[in-house]
Amino acid sequence: MAKNVIRSVKGTRDYYPEEMGVRTWLYQKMRKVSESFGYSEYEGPLLERFDLYVAKSSEEIVEKQSFVFEDRGGDRLTLRPELTPTLARMVASRQNQLTFPLRWWSFGPFWRYERPQKGRTREFFQWNIDMVGDDSPEADAELVAIAATFLREVGLKPDEVQVMVNNRRLMDAQLGKMGIAPEARPDVFNLIDRRDKLSQESWTAYAGELGLSPEQIEGIVALIQNKDLWQESPELVRLFQTLSSYGIEEYVQFAPHIIRGLVYYTGTVFEAWDTSGEHRAIFGGGRYDNLVADVGGDPVGGVGFAVGDLVLTLVLQDLNRLPDFSDSTAPVYFTLFDEALLQTSLELANQLREAGIRVSSQLQADKLGKQFKYADRIGAKVALVLGPDEATNQQISYKNLKTGDQVTIAQQEMVENLRQVLEATKPS
Amino acid sequence: MAKNVIRSVKGTRDYYPEEMGVRTWLYQKMRKVSESFGYSEYEGPLLERFDLYVAKSSEEIVEKQSFVFEDRGGDRLTLRPELTPTLARMVASRQNQLTFPLRWWSFGPFWRYERPQKGRTREFFQWNIDMVGDDSPEADAELVAIAATFLREVGLKPDEVQVMVNNRRLMDAQLGKMGIAPEARPDVFNLIDRRDKLSQESWTAYAGELGLSPEQIEGIVALIQNKDLWQESPELVRLFQTLSSYGIEEYVQFAPHIIRGLVYYTGTVFEAWDTSGEHRAIFGGGRYDNLVADVGGDPVGGVGFAVGDLVLTLVLQDLNRLPDFSDSTAPVYFTLFDEALLQTSLELANQLREAGIRVSSQLQADKLGKQFKYADRIGAKVALVLGPDEATNQQISYKNLKTGDQVTIAQQEMVENLRQVLEATKPS
Repeated sequence: MAKNVIRSVKGTRDYYPEEMGVRTWLYQKMRKVSESFGYSEYEGPLLERFDLYVAKSSEEIVEKQSFVFEDRGGDRLTLRPELTPTLARMVASRQNQLTFPLRWWSFGPFWRYERPQKGRTREFFQWNIDMVGDDSPEADAELVAIAATFLREVGLKPDEVQVMVNNRRLMDAQLGKMGIAPEARPDVFNLIDRRDKLSQESWTAYAGELGLSPEQIEGIVALIQNKDLWQESPELVRLFQTLSSYGIEEYVQFAPHIIRGLVYYTGTVFEAWDTSGEHRAIFGGGRYDNLVADVGGDPVGGVGFAVGDLVLTLVLQDLNRLPDFSDSTAPVYFTLFDEALLQTSLELANQLREAGIRVSSQLQADKLGKQFKYADRIGAKVALVLGPDEATNQQISYKNLKTGDQVTIAQQEMVENLRQVLEATKPS
Repeated sequence: MAKNVIRSVKGTRDYYPEEMGVRTWLYQKMRKVSESFGYSEYEGPLLERFDLYVAKSSEEIVEKQSFVFEDRGGDRLTLRPELTPTLARMVASRQNQLTFPLRWWSFGPFWRYERPQKGRTREFFQWNIDMVGDDSPEADAELVAIAATFLREVGLKPDEVQVMVNNRRLMDAQLGKMGIAPEARPDVFNLIDRRDKLSQESWTAYAGELGLSPEQIEGIVALIQNKDLWQESPELVRLFQTLSSYGIEEYVQFAPHIIRGLVYYTGTVFEAWDTSGEHRAIFGGGRYDNLVADVGGDPVGGVGFAVGDLVLTLVLQDLNRLPDFSDSTAPVYFTLFDEALLQTSLELANQLREAGIRVSSQLQADKLGKQFKYADRIGAKVALVLGPDEATNQQISYKNLKTGDQVTIAQQEMVENLRQVLEATKPS
């Protein structure tokens, strides 16, 4: 049937109520965790000037992988591929009025022009959370703790997900010790970042192309497997010490192979991975020192991370950790016995709403059996029936759609009674 | 200072926490009202194919006023200017699986390439709510009732806002009676719609250009002032009769000059206006019979409306009806007496979070006075202090940042005590 229906855009998604339930549930979890740590919700525009990204080092993303176009006025615009440059712009343009350190979080849409595949669409949603104006390892620890608290909040266990932490300054110093020149290190960071994305052969070949000697390649391989390396970083020592206060230590480990792709990170970097190894990184983040200055503000550093909705949802689905959102939002369906009773039925339904109970109403008279069936299909738990007898006696009947039980009560007991019934039908 | 900061895109907005507070407050009100009537949240993509809009009669919007561009693959895309065509597409592509009537709502971003002015930006947010699959005036009444319930929910009074209802079939029949040919009526609808947007001279001139006779123009002027005209529409008679069951009658009136700009409306149409006359329409909606068929589905009608955030916010601001969102989201600030107490301080702050209390933590030791000042500036109500004496005695002090009162209590009473204090500092 749907053959001639106009198609949606490749890489975008239609959120029917069931899928939207998942997105809203995630958004609420993000809100809960962000606010419990005292972060304020903010949001940038979804359209930004192309310059904003070129100004900063996420250039590779915007040049190759973004939706860029000219508007009718000839301005070159970008559908934002990430939020951090916008955050930097917003901080820079009110730098004198804002109170630092500031703690901000956001949830919204982003776009990348990439080949859609599992865990990757062209339009996706992301939670961003950042602290700006505190350059300490304790600030880094707070963000790592928030990341781990969130994973716990959505029901994931430490043996299922891990936040892997590293530090670029540490890695930079280590590369220096191997005789790798400062100007070659960004490429070596990129090499380390690509280790899990390339085959071993391709990776070694890539390393050779960068002009690394066999000893240096061997040194890098040993370096990114050295689980004790963090002890050489005073920042990481303080970070892990502080982390122990948040009750999420089991979710976090040191991982010297974590580098992050974005070149603007300067210190601590971290990523969350599922331990099954079946998915790409669930999310990532880190410290950036220069971003606000790069868009025209005074120097001020920040630390933060961004969680896309896609991989996270796949991991939660795999582990069967998502609630069931197939039900309608209204647990009560108010049937219509016949047209003469429409007005009274609508009035009683409205009484329920005023009392905070969600209810949909049948608006056209039809066989009761059909109405019950409809109520059940949209996920209602209880169907209310007001027939002529009930109307005369100021009563109302309700049918439990699961058990089929039907009870008649006084209308004045309706609100209290329904509250109890709905409480009882809630999933445990 | 901010001279060299990269600019944002014209007609977009930065939502700093205070502005974001307003948006989130509106979204929550929309959610509450939508769900109380049993509507399920959904969302479409923000990018759609240009064809989706050309297929339907909102063509004038997309051709003249939308962001349209080619992606890297050569597809012609549009930043969605409205949601109804997307709703039609989503219904059409799952028409056999969905249960009708369906009740759906959504809140998200939209774009129009128009000159930014008061109450109009290029990027804006809109609440959409629709019932699809029930063609009755009772369905129309439900949507009008939801619109009025929402206005009441955000604190507006019937003498401040009114939902103005009309019916295009009624108007069509009336134009027919005046001898206006069917093919001329869309232009006459447009003429009626523009009555408040043009000066009287321009309007009369425009009427003349349409080939209307002076008698016909006079007839139209009389028609759109005839407050009793609804009695000639059996649909409107049923609609107003049904409306009386929802307790919002005072918010609704018949208004024969309301036509709506979009050409896809076929029956009931309505708009909400502030009675001060200072703003453009707060929102509008109506019944559309052909939209799903037009995008390739089977014929099924719907009724719905869309509320932009801009005019609504202006009206609420004018009437001083918006809550104050200048405060931080964390009412509690946990100070840091000295570095030695960091770990214990963070642990106690975490205990508060586990108990559901939102708290930000000071991470670097500093003068207590400066910490109190910071706490006050970010909107905290209470500052907690753990000094060496408190630590030794398993106690904690808290300072009410408004009154300056300071109290020392046992740590084990901290959660219960703070709950009470925070309850007391809530705005009435």
